[in-house]
Order: sequence, then structure tokens, then C-alpha cells
Amino acid sequence: MSYTVKITISLKEGMLDPEARAIQHALSNLGFATESLSTAQVFFITMDVPSAGDARQRAEEMCERLLANPVIHSYEIEV
Amino acid sequence: MSYTVKITISLKEGMLDPEARAIQHALSNLGFATESLSTAQVFFITMDVPSAGDARQRAEEMCERLLANPVIHSYEIEV
Repeated sequence: MSYTVKITISLKEGMLDPEARAIQHALSNLGFATESLSTAQVFFITMDVPSAGDARQRAEEMCERLLANPVIHSYEIEV
Repeated sequence: MSYTVKITISLKEGMLDPEARAIQHALSNLGFATESLSTAQVFFITMDVPSAGDARQRAEEMCERLLANPVIHSYEIEV
């Protein structure tokens, strides 16, 4: 059966995010003052697995092996 | 008052997503078969505005002027 998982990958608390700082700076130059800005990457992955539990487990393996860098990233999986 | 908006930016339907194809290919090389894979970028922006409606409107302006390319991107705003 087909399941779609949503994987959200973000930098761990305290990690520097130069992309976010650059965007915040650019927004400020356009007159948009912001208090804070953070970014995250989302993947929607559809896979053919027997159950929702399997989909979650495979998504977790994908994160550990390719999508996230466990040293700097945290991830969240929704099936 | 401080409001945090979540802005999700994704490619419009039918746009080529080379990053997604590359990731799908890399996952396949690791033995993870996927039916489809798409990506999105998320921004969490905290700003000091009088109301939630103002927060949404400012977020929309930010998307139009900097964050999204209206030719290829669609965006979704949650306050």
C-alpha cells in the first residue's frame, strides 16, 4: 500500500544558520523587521510499504543514512 | 505583540525539481525504493505586529517580494 510521509529537517537548537541570517538581513533591507527567522527543509516521500509503521521506520532510516546529518540536524516524521 | 508565521514554499505542480530527483536517486542507490519525492522550504518568522491578520499580510508581502518566485513557487502561510 502507498503511504506518504512528511519529513521535516531542521538545524538543532544553537546551530548557526547563515542562510536564515542572510534572509533576515535581506528582509530588513526591504523594510521588514523580524524578531527571529529559522528555516527547515521538508520532504514528502511516497512509498509502497505494508503498513504506516513500516513507512515511519523506513523514513527514519532514510533520515539517518542520507537526509539528515545527526550531528547538526533534528528531524520529525509524520505519516 | 509577537506572532510567529510558518511559511511553506514549494514548487508549482509540473515544475522540474532536480534536487528531489537527485535525492530519490541517492535513496534508490541505498536500497530505498520510493514512488515519489518532493521538497519544500519552510520559514518560521517571528515579528512584532499588532494582530494576527497583520502578521499574515506581512508574510504574504515577504513571499511576493523576496522569499518566493511567483513564476515557479506556490506558498502557504500559517499564523
